[in-house]
Amino acid sequence: MKTYNQISTVSIIGSGNVATALGIALINSGINIIEVFSPNINNSKLLADKVDCNYVESIEELNSISDLYIIATPDKEISNVISKLKHIQGIIVHTSGGQSSEILHDFNRSGVFYPLQTFTKNKSVDFKRVPICIEGSDGATSDLLIQLANKISNNVVVLNSEQRQYLHLTAVTVNNFSNLLYYHAQNVLDEKGIDFSLLHPLVQETGHKIREVNPEEAQTGPARRNDVSTIEKHLALLGQYPEFKEIYKLLSDQIIRKYHG
Amino acid sequence: MKTYNQISTVSIIGSGNVATALGIALINSGINIIEVFSPNINNSKLLADKVDCNYVESIEELNSISDLYIIATPDKEISNVISKLKHIQGIIVHTSGGQSSEILHDFNRSGVFYPLQTFTKNKSVDFKRVPICIEGSDGATSDLLIQLANKISNNVVVLNSEQRQYLHLTAVTVNNFSNLLYYHAQNVLDEKGIDFSLLHPLVQETGHKIREVNPEEAQTGPARRNDVSTIEKHLALLGQYPEFKEIYKLLSDQIIRKYHG
Repeated sequence: MKTYNQISTVSIIGSGNVATALGIALINSGINIIEVFSPNINNSKLLADKVDCNYVESIEELNSISDLYIIATPDKEISNVISKLKHIQGIIVHTSGGQSSEILHDFNRSGVFYPLQTFTKNKSVDFKRVPICIEGSDGATSDLLIQLANKISNNVVVLNSEQRQYLHLTAVTVNNFSNLLYYHAQNVLDEKGIDFSLLHPLVQETGHKIREVNPEEAQTGPARRNDVSTIEKHLALLGQYPEFKEIYKLLSDQIIRKYHG
Repeated sequence: MKTYNQISTVSIIGSGNVATALGIALINSGINIIEVFSPNINNSKLLADKVDCNYVESIEELNSISDLYIIATPDKEISNVISKLKHIQGIIVHTSGGQSSEILHDFNRSGVFYPLQTFTKNKSVDFKRVPICIEGSDGATSDLLIQLANKISNNVVVLNSEQRQYLHLTAVTVNNFSNLLYYHAQNVLDEKGIDFSLLHPLVQETGHKIREVNPEEAQTGPARRNDVSTIEKHLALLGQYPEFKEIYKLLSDQIIRKYHG
């Protein structure tokens, strides 16, 4: 079993948004990325270019002596990747919010390195502000992963698998579901000839407000005031938008029950 | 009927968050606020102090010669206010997203002056970035209101009442409903011993992203990928949170139908 007191060399498996954002943050912090593997050779090349390393064309070609192997693939590919990495000696981590650490327990040293952010191609993110959630198979491994995470982020926390799964679930909620609300809003505004960008400042402020006021206190609006006449007017306006209407009704009902129930 | 080529003097009816934010923005732009009325005398005093003017203790005491009367009360009080302002000569506007301009049609000159933002006491907002939606009873009145709005905001638009009501509905959606999502997230994280502030960077990025990528393209997550196994895991984790679970289910179903239906 390999022993070391810091992680210096890294292999990356995957070439999507997380692999790319993480790879760039790591080399910017002086970490040596040895190699990249991804079933998508074109993406492998692009990422290898960005992080100034080689790419390998099959997973079996990955070297066995990197300090750390980062699996940044879609969740459903992780178990397949794992089955082909039996030869490695370093620490192996996945980057998934939703997967338990147990799936890596066949390895001597393993863990989770979960960056909590939404990454988009061609839109850079300030990694220093991205929370990184760490879990290690043992104390020494945790310490090495924390040390590495601290090089690229100012916001490193240790969470167990259950906590991370809840955090992932809430991340889905505040990101994916808010985005669906934005989609419904834009769709209606487009059809009424109203510029969606009018909502941008409100969207920003809504997100900023919860840094100072907790969401329970920050709640405002017709449902918060139990203003049934406005709610009914809005439901009528949504007559042609049954899915939007269903969301409007459910969420308004919940707010009314919470504050006036 | 009073005629003039700009609005110089203003009376404010109301003393809540909108009245206060608007009053401060107006005096900062050199507008002369003559007086404030609100049934809540304490709040009247506070606002009068902030905008350096007098307050009156009954609505009938309001002078009749201000260029503009701004009704910034809760929606349900507007018609009562209107009934007591028959003596005025200036333009009268309300600031409500949800109310039609028709309720002011007994006045010679009237309109709507709707600032699209969420205002919180003791949290200042940069008014220059707040969209102001204008509607006037006639072209000359519109022009005067636009001119005034341009003094305090860089984002002034003319909308008719139907458009403004749809905009208000979507504002409720992206603000109040996103905030309910934040509330459910915080509630679960608190109970699992996880710091809600870990989600702040993701919330900010979610809001910022739609300035560059439209929400339809920005959508990511388990439902977007039709990753049924993660969705079922999340629904199981939400067993103790039936309301949160109901939202999770509805919104995931809608995303799946939209992208995989």
